[in-house]
Amino acid sequence: MAKVSPARPIGSRGLPESMRSQGVACSVSESCPKDARVEGDQVSEFRWILERDDPETAARLGQVSTAHGSFETPVFMPVGTVGSVKGITPWEVARSGSGILLSNTYHLYLRPGMEVVRALGGLHRMMSWKGAILTDSGGYQVFSLSSLMKLEEQGVVFRSHIDGSKHELTPEKAVEIQETLGSDIMMVLDECPKPDSDEEYCRRSMALTTRWAKRCLAHRRSANALFCIVQGGMHAHLRRAHAEELAGLPFDGMAIGGLSVGESKELMMEMLAASISKLPTNRPRYFMGVGRPEDILKSVALGVDMFDCVLPTRSGRTGLLFTWNGEISVKQAGYRLKDEPPDRDCGCPTCRHFSLGYLRHLFVSGEMLAAVLNTTHNLYFYQDMMRRVRAAIAAGKYKDFLEERLPMVARKHAP
Amino acid sequence: MAKVSPARPIGSRGLPESMRSQGVACSVSESCPKDARVEGDQVSEFRWILERDDPETAARLGQVSTAHGSFETPVFMPVGTVGSVKGITPWEVARSGSGILLSNTYHLYLRPGMEVVRALGGLHRMMSWKGAILTDSGGYQVFSLSSLMKLEEQGVVFRSHIDGSKHELTPEKAVEIQETLGSDIMMVLDECPKPDSDEEYCRRSMALTTRWAKRCLAHRRSANALFCIVQGGMHAHLRRAHAEELAGLPFDGMAIGGLSVGESKELMMEMLAASISKLPTNRPRYFMGVGRPEDILKSVALGVDMFDCVLPTRSGRTGLLFTWNGEISVKQAGYRLKDEPPDRDCGCPTCRHFSLGYLRHLFVSGEMLAAVLNTTHNLYFYQDMMRRVRAAIAAGKYKDFLEERLPMVARKHAP
Repeated sequence: MAKVSPARPIGSRGLPESMRSQGVACSVSESCPKDARVEGDQVSEFRWILERDDPETAARLGQVSTAHGSFETPVFMPVGTVGSVKGITPWEVARSGSGILLSNTYHLYLRPGMEVVRALGGLHRMMSWKGAILTDSGGYQVFSLSSLMKLEEQGVVFRSHIDGSKHELTPEKAVEIQETLGSDIMMVLDECPKPDSDEEYCRRSMALTTRWAKRCLAHRRSANALFCIVQGGMHAHLRRAHAEELAGLPFDGMAIGGLSVGESKELMMEMLAASISKLPTNRPRYFMGVGRPEDILKSVALGVDMFDCVLPTRSGRTGLLFTWNGEISVKQAGYRLKDEPPDRDCGCPTCRHFSLGYLRHLFVSGEMLAAVLNTTHNLYFYQDMMRRVRAAIAAGKYKDFLEERLPMVARKHAP
Repeated sequence: MAKVSPARPIGSRGLPESMRSQGVACSVSESCPKDARVEGDQVSEFRWILERDDPETAARLGQVSTAHGSFETPVFMPVGTVGSVKGITPWEVARSGSGILLSNTYHLYLRPGMEVVRALGGLHRMMSWKGAILTDSGGYQVFSLSSLMKLEEQGVVFRSHIDGSKHELTPEKAVEIQETLGSDIMMVLDECPKPDSDEEYCRRSMALTTRWAKRCLAHRRSANALFCIVQGGMHAHLRRAHAEELAGLPFDGMAIGGLSVGESKELMMEMLAASISKLPTNRPRYFMGVGRPEDILKSVALGVDMFDCVLPTRSGRTGLLFTWNGEISVKQAGYRLKDEPPDRDCGCPTCRHFSLGYLRHLFVSGEMLAAVLNTTHNLYFYQDMMRRVRAAIAAGKYKDFLEERLPMVARKHAP
């Protein structure tokens, strides 16, 4: 029962045929020609096909195709905030199984800035990433990182967290920046209310987010996909209403935002379910900024298709490893003499080559390689987890999978 | 005119035949079995063959074989101080062309300590390095990093720079620690006098170093190679005398120590030449802690076979790139919009994939990937330089090579 994302018919985006589907012929490998750099200025063509619904849960298997390759959903997107997945080469990110990563518009807009990105051939070429890229709108960081100066109908005025310089971000500008970056999937500018915001505030904020979303749609000049964002705070009926309203607009996909911002896990899941209940089945659903392995496994069962989170990369730097035997804190003294990999069954380069005792030594010695090896493992683990998730849905057995795997990832590993 | 290092006849080291030459069958590649870890407890068999003398300079081409593989000399050894080349996986170090790296006994002895190294199967297995390892004796760091408490005939007593704990290092203990590490090439404990030490001090220090060197020889229980160290401060006649004295002892190789410690480049080269003038031609010569590309190129012409230095790795972290077009400081504003690799002719992963503009962005943003990519380039550059050095000697044209290349590496690259 394959369904095509109906946002707009493929091929109607007013671009000459010669500019479409410039696939990347050269994969990252030893046989690569000497100059293995990524071509700039590629045209994105976004398509999502629903391949299978799980019979006992709301989980779904799908496939996304873009001008920068295809990948299956549910998918996890590692985060490359300022145009690099911290400490990891793009070919190692690709080898881990990632077909798409997320990068942050706010950070890239401030540094290196659009003049540089343009001169370096767009974000894909600049960071040498051959896969797809999703960029956020920058709104979330304006609200959380910068000193916000003014929020009004037109947009937001803020000061940079780097140098205090003054900037304005409007829905139109958010789209323009993301088009300059060459993002395969762009996000609309939205306002993300605090978790304790009251109904009245959330209702007004939601309405603003909808008006901004429409302005983003109207301003798009490229073939890049554009996703809207469901808000509504911690009010289930507002979330349902917002999802319903946005579903009527021709977005390529629907994100659920404003969650995992400090509320309880129960409330987060309740709000997620409320949002999804009114989303169309024929477009991909992206749960922004989530999350821990157990949150991802549960959210897939509710029908989420896309995830992103800094957790595997940030935890790698702080010495936390995710495994099917639970979470490992490498610094524990109990691992000191342990000549065993973090996970015997893991095929990642870290587990194939190194012992917990060595990883502990690197971490307590403050060696940069600790962050590199831990992050590499976590990236592989997250992709392995998503592969297993997809295999379970493909087999129509996601419920059994969830029951078996949820307790495994949620526990802590003791030395 | 091949000559075999005569230190001792091969195969006479009192070890059962079954323990010898356990080659490492599995190279680091995609076809590696799942558990790609390095075997512990391998037995080193050291051999150096002089393959060719350059007709117009004192440069020589040679080949070293060890239980952990072979490599050609002149060779550059990257430094993995505490058991990791900072930020770089061992397979990337190997891919850059390194067949041997250096690790620091002082650091490893203090952290993780010998109990851990033993439990993790020795240094090769612990750090997953299939190539050869040379370890220093720890002496240099005792004199430069720790608070030295007592220097006497027996050895040195010092306090750890990490936690202030008290330790003793003797020639015997230096050998034992290096044998526990499983080093392929061990260094004798020596005293390294300050560059302004007077003749009398240097003469006494030199004599102590000789006595210590003999105690190291007498205490060796393994088949690991052992190199002595020529000292003598900044006094040419002492250096000649020390070299002559040590040449009479059955060491597997001869190091020149106590240089590049603050003296001028001219004086350093003069002392190097004095030391080498009395060294035998049939054993490898290792110039410790050197150095810059131009220092290496000049030293090769004087007959040096082995080098180590933190420069390519440390400079990578501080944003300096070595190229055949000169030294590049990536942070310079002039590289901001530069969509060109650091060196068009370099085959390293960094130059093949990234622009100077992007490397500058990563560096000024404090991204860890900056250090990883810069260090990777520098490791490849140093190995490429040594490959060209060897090719020039093999062709009998080292003098022309030196005249052509020396000005290229010594200059600064401007944006």
